[in-house]
Amino acid sequence: MKKISVRTKVLTGTVAAAALAAATLGAVSASAEATDTPSAAAAVKADTQNKNLAQTTGLTIAAATKAAQATLDAATKAGQKVSVAVVDRDGVTRVLLKGDGAGPQSPESAVRKAFTAVSWNAPTSELAKRLAQAPNLKDIPGTLFLAGGAPVQSKGAPVAGIGVAGAPSGDLDEQFAQAGVEALGK
Amino acid sequence: MKKISVRTKVLTGTVAAAALAAATLGAVSASAEATDTPSAAAAVKADTQNKNLAQTTGLTIAAATKAAQATLDAATKAGQKVSVAVVDRDGVTRVLLKGDGAGPQSPESAVRKAFTAVSWNAPTSELAKRLAQAPNLKDIPGTLFLAGGAPVQSKGAPVAGIGVAGAPSGDLDEQFAQAGVEALGK
Amino acid sequence: MKKISVRTKVLTGTVAAAALAAATLGAVSASAEATDTPSAAAAVKADTQNKNLAQTTGLTIAAATKAAQATLDAATKAGQKVSVAVVDRDGVTRVLLKGDGAGPQSPESAVRKAFTAVSWNAPTSELAKRLAQAPNLKDIPGTLFLAGGAPVQSKGAPVAGIGVAGAPSGDLDEQFAQAGVEALGK
Amino acid sequence: MKKISVRTKVLTGTVAAAALAAATLGAVSASAEATDTPSAAAAVKADTQNKNLAQTTGLTIAAATKAAQATLDAATKAGQKVSVAVVDRDGVTRVLLKGDGAGPQSPESAVRKAFTAVSWNAPTSELAKRLAQAPNLKDIPGTLFLAGGAPVQSKGAPVAGIGVAGAPSGDLDEQFAQAGVEALGK
Amino acid sequence: MKKISVRTKVLTGTVAAAALAAATLGAVSASAEATDTPSAAAAVKADTQNKNLAQTTGLTIAAATKAAQATLDAATKAGQKVSVAVVDRDGVTRVLLKGDGAGPQSPESAVRKAFTAVSWNAPTSELAKRLAQAPNLKDIPGTLFLAGGAPVQSKGAPVAGIGVAGAPSGDLDEQFAQAGVEALGK
Amino acid sequence: MKKISVRTKVLTGTVAAAALAAATLGAVSASAEATDTPSAAAAVKADTQNKNLAQTTGLTIAAATKAAQATLDAATKAGQKVSVAVVDRDGVTRVLLKGDGAGPQSPESAVRKAFTAVSWNAPTSELAKRLAQAPNLKDIPGTLFLAGGAPVQSKGAPVAGIGVAGAPSGDLDEQFAQAGVEALGK
Amino acid sequence: MKKISVRTKVLTGTVAAAALAAATLGAVSASAEATDTPSAAAAVKADTQNKNLAQTTGLTIAAATKAAQATLDAATKAGQKVSVAVVDRDGVTRVLLKGDGAGPQSPESAVRKAFTAVSWNAPTSELAKRLAQAPNLKDIPGTLFLAGGAPVQSKGAPVAGIGVAGAPSGDLDEQFAQAGVEALGK
Amino acid sequence: MKKISVRTKVLTGTVAAAALAAATLGAVSASAEATDTPSAAAAVKADTQNKNLAQTTGLTIAAATKAAQATLDAATKAGQKVSVAVVDRDGVTRVLLKGDGAGPQSPESAVRKAFTAVSWNAPTSELAKRLAQAPNLKDIPGTLFLAGGAPVQSKGAPVAGIGVAGAPSGDLDEQFAQAGVEALGK
Repeated sequence: MKKISVRTKVLTGTVAAAALAAATLGAVSASAEATDTPSAAAAVKADTQNKNLAQTTGLTIAAATKAAQATLDAATKAGQKVSVAVVDRDGVTRVLLKGDGAGPQSPESAVRKAFTAVSWNAPTSELAKRLAQAPNLKDIPGTLFLAGGAPVQSKGAPVAGIGVAGAPSGDLDEQFAQAGVEALGK
Repeated sequence: MKKISVRTKVLTGTVAAAALAAATLGAVSASAEATDTPSAAAAVKADTQNKNLAQTTGLTIAAATKAAQATLDAATKAGQKVSVAVVDRDGVTRVLLKGDGAGPQSPESAVRKAFTAVSWNAPTSELAKRLAQAPNLKDIPGTLFLAGGAPVQSKGAPVAGIGVAGAPSGDLDEQFAQAGVEALGK
Repeated sequence: MKKISVRTKVLTGTVAAAALAAATLGAVSASAEATDTPSAAAAVKADTQNKNLAQTTGLTIAAATKAAQATLDAATKAGQKVSVAVVDRDGVTRVLLKGDGAGPQSPESAVRKAFTAVSWNAPTSELAKRLAQAPNLKDIPGTLFLAGGAPVQSKGAPVAGIGVAGAPSGDLDEQFAQAGVEALGK
Repeated sequence: MKKISVRTKVLTGTVAAAALAAATLGAVSASAEATDTPSAAAAVKADTQNKNLAQTTGLTIAAATKAAQATLDAATKAGQKVSVAVVDRDGVTRVLLKGDGAGPQSPESAVRKAFTAVSWNAPTSELAKRLAQAPNLKDIPGTLFLAGGAPVQSKGAPVAGIGVAGAPSGDLDEQFAQAGVEALGK
Repeated sequence: MKKISVRTKVLTGTVAAAALAAATLGAVSASAEATDTPSAAAAVKADTQNKNLAQTTGLTIAAATKAAQATLDAATKAGQKVSVAVVDRDGVTRVLLKGDGAGPQSPESAVRKAFTAVSWNAPTSELAKRLAQAPNLKDIPGTLFLAGGAPVQSKGAPVAGIGVAGAPSGDLDEQFAQAGVEALGK
Repeated sequence: MKKISVRTKVLTGTVAAAALAAATLGAVSASAEATDTPSAAAAVKADTQNKNLAQTTGLTIAAATKAAQATLDAATKAGQKVSVAVVDRDGVTRVLLKGDGAGPQSPESAVRKAFTAVSWNAPTSELAKRLAQAPNLKDIPGTLFLAGGAPVQSKGAPVAGIGVAGAPSGDLDEQFAQAGVEALGK
Repeated sequence: MKKISVRTKVLTGTVAAAALAAATLGAVSASAEATDTPSAAAAVKADTQNKNLAQTTGLTIAAATKAAQATLDAATKAGQKVSVAVVDRDGVTRVLLKGDGAGPQSPESAVRKAFTAVSWNAPTSELAKRLAQAPNLKDIPGTLFLAGGAPVQSKGAPVAGIGVAGAPSGDLDEQFAQAGVEALGK
Repeated sequence: MKKISVRTKVLTGTVAAAALAAATLGAVSASAEATDTPSAAAAVKADTQNKNLAQTTGLTIAAATKAAQATLDAATKAGQKVSVAVVDRDGVTRVLLKGDGAGPQSPESAVRKAFTAVSWNAPTSELAKRLAQAPNLKDIPGTLFLAGGAPVQSKGAPVAGIGVAGAPSGDLDEQFAQAGVEALGK
């Protein structure tokens, strides 16, 4: 998904509606965005000014899958049965893998560790220590302050979080998550 | 948030942990990402390869607030009491305004209309018509197939959705949402 | 919304139903209350006695938006990326702003801090200290006992709460919330 | 709760914090707002400008209880076993009564009917008819488009909703709700 | 918990279906159980054996309302703004009153205190002390270990719980709840 | 629903607290009601007046288990893989059995059918037909209007519901549920 | 459910669709898997390679029911009123019994203890002790770290969990759960 | 995970507790089952009888990932932006991939289509047609009756479901899901 220059013209809603109606003549279900063809562009209703836009950096699904797989492989190599999650900077899950034999608590635990790591841009083993000073941090919905989550960074900013759960210790979980992070640099 | 060039060096987790420990000496609570200073950058653990990264386009909070305010103003001018929501391409709410006198059902209704508009990149008045062919679309969690939602587009792709609820008809709601979209082009 | 004198006549449900049927001849969707015109008033079914009524004081949406914007501006000026929420005395969110770059945990965290501040009419930094005596207060649904929430008061009574989340410390978050409160006095 | 004039002075957060600390010396748990005494008023941190404030009209708990009881009595007199709910204009439940022998589905059903009636300021028997034109209205969270809900109005504006569930027909349920509305005029 | 005699005859599903079909000729909505008339009894499909049945003791709605009202009156007399809940032995809410000016956190807090009191048949002030020995008791869903809940007992067994929230201390809340319990003995 | 005689003496909260404290000297966790011994009775705080009490009839766990087992056996005999639920008149699940090979949708489906049957005191196959007249009945939370639920009655009143899900048709599901009902009469 | 050899042939979706259409000519509702007849096998669309498959070991419903009943019997014999749950290795409830007189908190508490025991393959009394080292383990959704849960093992691996709640102490609860486990060996 | 023979000896809980205590001397967090070593086997508390056990067939994580990747590749090749889910026979998500540019509604939609396909062992395009006869099937929690879900079968029995959402039509979604199913046969 390359960075796009932004159109400035704003067409009316009426034109857009017509274009959309045309687009729906076939059987239509759960459709995503219109493909970026010239004719579709012609129907654009509200191209916004460049100044209105901001970019959020995230992993491609290819990269997220690569990281998740490397994480799971590290766990398997160590004889551990775990679940692995990769969430983006918005806290949305991009990849979830429930490994063979991983416990029923592990998928949600992995997702929350990943969410926590990307929210504070730090490994959850470090974040768990912060509770000594601010114990109620752990009451923020969606978080889990257990070792096993690691942030993925670009220029120091968090772009994703990797979470692992299921090994006998959170430190082991976090080793696997770090292996996933490192796989992105290879 | 300008587009950043991406570092390629990958430091070890140990170094990162040290840097993070140093960063937590003060009273720390609910902290967001580390500030992008050179010393913080030095601690980067997992700068990823450029090929791993993708950008998602969204509205700045300034633009989203401007659009929401224009939407609410249009409703107020028409004597209607409404709630207004702006959600981003990930479906996350960026702005929510519950207007004076708006009914208790209106905030959630506005959020769902915005979510629906950005998910399918079309006004919800159009999407409601698609149910004739695919009636169960409306069972997808988070959606609401009622007029009142409008997508915000950049080069034809959805970057946000604006949802309005509370006027006596969905068509009125959607007029206000369109006013919000158009305000972004001014 | 000025204080209204209250009609005492009670009309029958049948008359009201007729009026409502008349009001729905156009396309109707998600409509709010009928506009306060004489003809609508004529259809009133159950005007209640004055003694039955009580007033709840809250912020106008204009004031709530002003406060939220001042809060976000204070954070931006300090280089912090935060989310801001304003909730009313009933705990209902009036304004939510997810700032640029604010973490995914921050909107819900901001809402809960605002909810907590308005519920107990005190800054959440103070309320967090009360847990030393009553630790289970924090188990009340909807609350978050972390610094960053501030009450808005009228004659000492709480009329709203402002919550902030995303800065590296709750004390910073609360400074921004206080800036929002103070903006209401300007 | 009479309408209050609004103080304009804004004290600093520091003073407020001190006052709050003083107020918490006793055992404190789940405390509501400070009582409106002169000394408490002296600690007010953020008395807001009059222009910032709006009033929402609702029922007193005495009135809401009276209406709910009259509703339940009407049902009992008719030999029906029902639940009764009164919600305010913000959609918050003020009174809930699960009558003797009322089915397990009835409390939530009553709450939703009341919520729906106050949201659109019309009896739910009327609102159910609107679905012919806007069928997806019923997908708005919190609503139930079944007869049995009636709005309580002041000068035509909705100030509460009464919902009933459990009788063999929604029309019966709504008769009881109307009896509750009418009791407020006596 | 003694047993009642019951009918022993078991009719077939077919007969029952016919009776039910007959019962639905009118407009039918949200209907509760059939009234206990002889003709209805004739359609009984599955009267069970005496040995199959057990009785659960609870409050009548009249008693539950009386207790809730006495509780609220005690709080009002003390100048406190609270919410009051009465739940039965099955944990189901029978009465909920959100008093004038009670905070938004108070209704759910009152319900949970009542639930906790009836679950363990003890005042929640006592139950909170048990956490010293079994701290994770408070993680059981639906509970709240804060003073303010009191059990209603019959022959020592719990038949209901009364919960109060909103006063400046849980001890005050619980005094009001006890006033509600005692009103049942008058 | 006849009433039982009960104790009328009301002891004070102080005495009760003492008794409770004594009862908690051992390791205490998740304790249910005190056993009904004379010494426990001596600590009774709030024995209520006879007029305050009502009885709800339900199945013993022995009967509910017998019915559920008979239901599952009928399904197994017919070569069907199903889940079975028995809920009481308050809608609370008493027995849940997820049979071997039953689909993941079946337990919740069975619970909801049972809930629906006991709420309206009719087989869900009959209730599904009522939707022709009142289509929005099915929007009541907790219900499912699919064949497969059957009420258990005592003197014509519902005392439980049995729900089945997983067979290729709801009619089959309901046959098994009826077999469970009939087993109670043997 | 014996271990099956796996077909390797992959038929096309078209053939499968035809077979499925044929299977739906009768009234069809909530149907589970097709019965394993030769003709059904002929329509198989996607028989997978053996290497793709793994087996998860669990209890039969007969065994799970036997264990749950033995658990409840042990509690009844000891004069305790409890709920009992059996969950499988995937955390899915197989059996739930709410015993006579068991408190409203007990079913969910029993399910969570069973879930916790099977997730970590240890009695919850042991797991509660681990919180001394990793206190945030208890924040993992679905868990409850209170005595009363016991794993069922096959060759040392967890195949189910039994949870009990309602006795005056968790140690008692766990004795009953162990009785259920031991009944499986008889 | 090969099929294991089952031990029959049942050791006591005391021995197991000792073994478990020994296993927890290191830092322990979110640990899964004990590794299957002889010494661990010696501590087995409740090895069950063979007759108590049943096997559930599912995909290995390797197979599930392969199928999900093939599904996503097929969508990408067709220029569509989708999310993909693989759930097992228990309805538990094994793999979730949110593809680049896929809408915010797509992950949950994909999960539900997969859940629906494995629950009824049929493509969701077929299942959607069944609603003509049993329209309320779609009210079963967790389901979504939209084309895009396909079952994975072994000997005709469902062992997994693959769900896809995000393409402009459900038929396209389902083509991609079928590509995933077919990849398992290669």
